[in-house]
Amino acid sequence: MGLRQSSYVPSCTPSSEDQKAATLDMLFKNIDLHERAYIDRLRKAISFQSVSSNKALRKDLIQAMHWLKEQMGTVGISCEAVATGMQELLSGEKIDLPPIVLGQLGTSPRKKTLLVYGHLDVQQAERKDGWKTEPFKLAEKEGQLYGRGVADNKAAVISWINAVEMLQRQNVDIPFCIEGMAHCGSLGIEWLLRKRSEMWLQDVDFVCITDGQWLGNRKPCLAYGSRGVCQFRIEVSTEGRDVHSGAYGGALYEPMADLCWVLDHLTDVTGKITIPGIDKLIATPNEEERKLFESLDFDIEEYRKATGASDLTGSSKVQLLTRIWRCPSLSVHGVEGGYNGSGMKTIIPSKVAASFSIYLVPNMTPDRVNSHVINYLNIFWPKRQSPNSIKVYPQHSVYPWITTYNHPHFEAANRAINHVYGVDADLIRQSRAIPAATILHQVTGSSIIVMPLNTKDDAPEAVNEKLQLRSYMEGMKTIIAYLFELASL
Amino acid sequence: MGLRQSSYVPSCTPSSEDQKAATLDMLFKNIDLHERAYIDRLRKAISFQSVSSNKALRKDLIQAMHWLKEQMGTVGISCEAVATGMQELLSGEKIDLPPIVLGQLGTSPRKKTLLVYGHLDVQQAERKDGWKTEPFKLAEKEGQLYGRGVADNKAAVISWINAVEMLQRQNVDIPFCIEGMAHCGSLGIEWLLRKRSEMWLQDVDFVCITDGQWLGNRKPCLAYGSRGVCQFRIEVSTEGRDVHSGAYGGALYEPMADLCWVLDHLTDVTGKITIPGIDKLIATPNEEERKLFESLDFDIEEYRKATGASDLTGSSKVQLLTRIWRCPSLSVHGVEGGYNGSGMKTIIPSKVAASFSIYLVPNMTPDRVNSHVINYLNIFWPKRQSPNSIKVYPQHSVYPWITTYNHPHFEAANRAINHVYGVDADLIRQSRAIPAATILHQVTGSSIIVMPLNTKDDAPEAVNEKLQLRSYMEGMKTIIAYLFELASL
Repeated sequence: MGLRQSSYVPSCTPSSEDQKAATLDMLFKNIDLHERAYIDRLRKAISFQSVSSNKALRKDLIQAMHWLKEQMGTVGISCEAVATGMQELLSGEKIDLPPIVLGQLGTSPRKKTLLVYGHLDVQQAERKDGWKTEPFKLAEKEGQLYGRGVADNKAAVISWINAVEMLQRQNVDIPFCIEGMAHCGSLGIEWLLRKRSEMWLQDVDFVCITDGQWLGNRKPCLAYGSRGVCQFRIEVSTEGRDVHSGAYGGALYEPMADLCWVLDHLTDVTGKITIPGIDKLIATPNEEERKLFESLDFDIEEYRKATGASDLTGSSKVQLLTRIWRCPSLSVHGVEGGYNGSGMKTIIPSKVAASFSIYLVPNMTPDRVNSHVINYLNIFWPKRQSPNSIKVYPQHSVYPWITTYNHPHFEAANRAINHVYGVDADLIRQSRAIPAATILHQVTGSSIIVMPLNTKDDAPEAVNEKLQLRSYMEGMKTIIAYLFELASL
Repeated sequence: MGLRQSSYVPSCTPSSEDQKAATLDMLFKNIDLHERAYIDRLRKAISFQSVSSNKALRKDLIQAMHWLKEQMGTVGISCEAVATGMQELLSGEKIDLPPIVLGQLGTSPRKKTLLVYGHLDVQQAERKDGWKTEPFKLAEKEGQLYGRGVADNKAAVISWINAVEMLQRQNVDIPFCIEGMAHCGSLGIEWLLRKRSEMWLQDVDFVCITDGQWLGNRKPCLAYGSRGVCQFRIEVSTEGRDVHSGAYGGALYEPMADLCWVLDHLTDVTGKITIPGIDKLIATPNEEERKLFESLDFDIEEYRKATGASDLTGSSKVQLLTRIWRCPSLSVHGVEGGYNGSGMKTIIPSKVAASFSIYLVPNMTPDRVNSHVINYLNIFWPKRQSPNSIKVYPQHSVYPWITTYNHPHFEAANRAINHVYGVDADLIRQSRAIPAATILHQVTGSSIIVMPLNTKDDAPEAVNEKLQLRSYMEGMKTIIAYLFELASL
């Protein structure tokens, strides 16, 4: 990467605020000088088809994790790629989980210890989905970087490697935990961290998750919470076979009608969950947080436009943020069975299914939510008086996570952001589930921060995922400033 | 076919009942002798991939129609294959419609004239759908004939050719109308028949449609009515894009929830349509018909078992037959949008759609039903108070058809059935729509009979369509006896 030719070898132990600012300024300039090298490293990271949900690409994902270990090694991080066993697919087939890369930079008992978490796996991406460029080939255009994983989460992981390489010495010990199953529930990570907890997590003071995204495009954010999720599959069946609707229409209790009836009784028009008891699980409203929401730089109209919807369920900032951060929600993702193609096929499907998710907020737990859903359907379904059978399968679940933002860790991160952006960070929650946040919270007991490096516009989309080159460069600077600030605590 | 070596050339002009019975008996035996030749002719018919709904197979369908014309010619029927113009596909593309084969056997003003209708097109069939044999290759196994189209409707069409060949002379003039678009709304047939009505339909005394199936397996049937159908597509959309349910769940009015709400308000649990006004379109109950239903050989348990459903919406014969013949029904065939594959994809689909059909009974008309559905949704949708847009697209429709069964035509057909099966036919309706029945009713004004040659067990299924060899052979005998009986009227 050619960074070591720099005659000045800075460290993150400034003797005064002024010296810190001057050092950071010099480092920031140095980062700008190496832009091309950083893009090239990201290019290589993007080139791996590290899709965790596709078993056909499991080898690519494993290869990516080994490449990462090597990269981390080149900047002086001691690394191991730890196997975490097998994954059992829905079909019953078992395949290797990708290794988790555990790294260690420094082991001084005098220094603060920051655990850094990231992931290298990405969501499925194929040209035919509507990508304008090859998804696994980094494309640069007008200050934007396009490619699967640039925003979620490869650039963030590579930024840490770049930052460590730039600093060469640091006054914070950094254990790294980079995984490859974040899009599939972070399988294996809890098991591994608990197994290694004594030798690896004892001294962790802080945890940083560089994932997620800003609330808008103007102000950086620090997140102190994220929603969890419970996923479900619901099936209604006659136990018989598909029949012609002309021949049998009117004679059968149709499973599709039953399913629509059930789905229509899970939420109201605004998406508010109507399953009894769910509301009582939610942590009571908090006046301090309400004021915090009020203060955030959040443009409802901008948010609405990003979805393309003509209206949203909340008309004020507080109302809307409360809905996506502080309230559970239920979404039906799709309905299977029958005929989903274009045109008509006049059948009565004998078995139909829907998949839906409930997003959880503190103090909901997956166990309680699962039992509320199942109990409700047990009590509610007989009211339909249909002879068809209904089955509910709870699937993958993630706990919600929340921490206190009145903590020196947040203050340090905020000062780092101030160094780079000249503004205070907004304190936010993430509405998406972050499995690692809950797991790391439990296994370390330390202060966790989710520090998104991407603006709202960098958001990972289903297709044409992109990152502003500026976000990538400023992200690295933020990491460096953050390490300086943590060392000062 | 080797039939002309028979030294006796029978005609259908018996001088007495006894002579008629003796002649039929001899003909029936002669038919049995030629079983192999009839199977071979059917084999050739099955070999055409005459799928009317698949544009890629349109050439095969056209080829099949020309082959049919040729076959009809070899047994002495004057034929023409008449082009009926272009079909406009949903994509806007236009492709040739298959020709309709118009045939004429005899033109004597002294004889009765019977218009025979059949179709040569079939539904889609591919090995991967679960066929145990090649769908377009006739397979014989334990007295069953397997292949796409054996039951619906190729064997019936070929039976007419076999019957004409066997008789060589007949005392009934027979115009034939064999089409290739029956599974796609019989496009072109009404236009052609009206165009040719003066020279071709003036003298038609009777119409016979050899389509549909028996009510059970023990007693043959004659149908005096069939339901019609109106098909719809309904779409709910935010006008925006698909978004991640974690990021946006709770902020959006979700189109899938809206769609389930609408679909849940179209029927009750038994499938009874809850759209106001639909009920008032139904012809008033008829005590004579109720008694007829009561008398039919219809085994509810057998019918239930065939569907695999654990219960049906009617518990008595009359109740159930009323539901499938005398009542409209509404079936939702499938829901598009979102994710329909296995596993989970946590998105909020921005546009969802459902396809559904309403089956019509007299005196419902497609126009009235369409306007009731649209009016209802116009009035009902605003109650949802969702900002999403809803669109309803009426699609293909078919009128219901009904005729009087107190007619010499039905008596003659019943006597024919008695000759072959030794029992009276059950008088039934067909619950499926038969586009040609309505069209022929309108253009000829004559008595129409739907005379199914297949038992309930021969029913055309989505996969592994089959016909009992016995049904094929007895069907030909029924046709011959029917021609004898019509000549005696």
